[in-house]
Amino acid sequence: MGTTQLQTVPEPKYWHLKTVLTEALDSEFTVGEILPNERELAARFGVARATLRQALEQLELEGRLQRRRGVGTTVAPPRMGVAVGTEEHAWPSVGGDAWEPADCEFAVPPAAVADALETGHGEAVHIVRRTRVNNGQTVAAELLYIPQASVPELTGIDAPSGPARARAVLRELQRREATGQDRAVELGSAGADDAKALDRLPGAPVLVVTTRYFAEGRTAALSVATYRADTCRLTFGDAGGVEIHHTPERRAS
Amino acid sequence: MGTTQLQTVPEPKYWHLKTVLTEALDSEFTVGEILPNERELAARFGVARATLRQALEQLELEGRLQRRRGVGTTVAPPRMGVAVGTEEHAWPSVGGDAWEPADCEFAVPPAAVADALETGHGEAVHIVRRTRVNNGQTVAAELLYIPQASVPELTGIDAPSGPARARAVLRELQRREATGQDRAVELGSAGADDAKALDRLPGAPVLVVTTRYFAEGRTAALSVATYRADTCRLTFGDAGGVEIHHTPERRAS
Repeated sequence: MGTTQLQTVPEPKYWHLKTVLTEALDSEFTVGEILPNERELAARFGVARATLRQALEQLELEGRLQRRRGVGTTVAPPRMGVAVGTEEHAWPSVGGDAWEPADCEFAVPPAAVADALETGHGEAVHIVRRTRVNNGQTVAAELLYIPQASVPELTGIDAPSGPARARAVLRELQRREATGQDRAVELGSAGADDAKALDRLPGAPVLVVTTRYFAEGRTAALSVATYRADTCRLTFGDAGGVEIHHTPERRAS
Repeated sequence: MGTTQLQTVPEPKYWHLKTVLTEALDSEFTVGEILPNERELAARFGVARATLRQALEQLELEGRLQRRRGVGTTVAPPRMGVAVGTEEHAWPSVGGDAWEPADCEFAVPPAAVADALETGHGEAVHIVRRTRVNNGQTVAAELLYIPQASVPELTGIDAPSGPARARAVLRELQRREATGQDRAVELGSAGADDAKALDRLPGAPVLVVTTRYFAEGRTAALSVATYRADTCRLTFGDAGGVEIHHTPERRAS
């Protein structure tokens, strides 16, 4: 904000450093450039390593920096706008768009999923695994839970497993009459499988998008998709999203 | 997931510990209970302090634990569903609902905001600060940027400052013919002011919701709202779900 009127809370040291670093990133560095190491940066800005590290962590949270094993800390490109919840698709697609079905199995879901689906605990459901690719980068990994009741005519003959099986399940789902969907977004951490799919370390922050698909008065499918929080900005509404790539600094420009 | 077929990536030690801790939280602890200290927990589960700390950090990211200064680590209540982007309100409310106008000033916004508003850099706009309260907890802090062109008839006479001024600006905004809005959600970190409003430490992860309000073919207002990521789950679509008015795509199986 930068106005004296609203700026009433004293800033911690690393926060001020973060602002200084942000300005340096804007003026001296280009996207993809590797930052000097922590020792050099701490010396240059006259701060302790611990302070520097806190500031770097903030900038990573805000998507300005990326830390990659074996590479170092690089200047991140602006976050990608990734459209979520456009009303075009009543059902998850069978493929051919950004989403790619990868696998399918018939297994017992976690209890919380069973509750949302109103299936009995211990009852197996179809679990489709899909990934979403944007600009050549895998931005989301999804588990899509589909009760047998939503795909009653599905047979196991033609495609017993793999992507073909996933597509067969999704095609069957699309025969239902969709009546709506709702959606929630929350912070989470990447599990081992998701982390691998997203090229992140396990435990990395992710945005978890949970979508319930309704048909004929009940929950016909439940999607739990984890999006890379470092590179993605989830957009809602068809206008293409908001053209602000970083959290605006609350200081005068 | 818990199924052997999809669980193909080996889990790091702290990840396994996290699973064990999750089960312990479910079975042995109640919401609000203070966990034993790190030394005791590490001893109980037979792990190094560093491993324990990583697992606790994951559980904090996922909203299962809260760490509060001077209190310790407590078991968090389930995240609150906080509705974002219901289509009821074409414009930000003047107050009287969950949002409370707190202050207003006329100042130059950050360059990224000016770009989104299509105002000139260095041009002052109205900046309304609002907070959102849910179940007695402040869950979001917002800066709402409104160009002078969106509230041309606003006078400074009746309410020069404070909440009354904020309401006057919002009332004027509501005279415009709203034509739509779009919205983006991304990960961010709490600035000093937001952190104070949200009762968090500066730098805490937040969900940043940026909303553009359109009127008469241009951006009439821009809202940048930071939601507590630890306690909030942002929901889209009203209770029964977003109604889909399209005929679902039918495909042959």
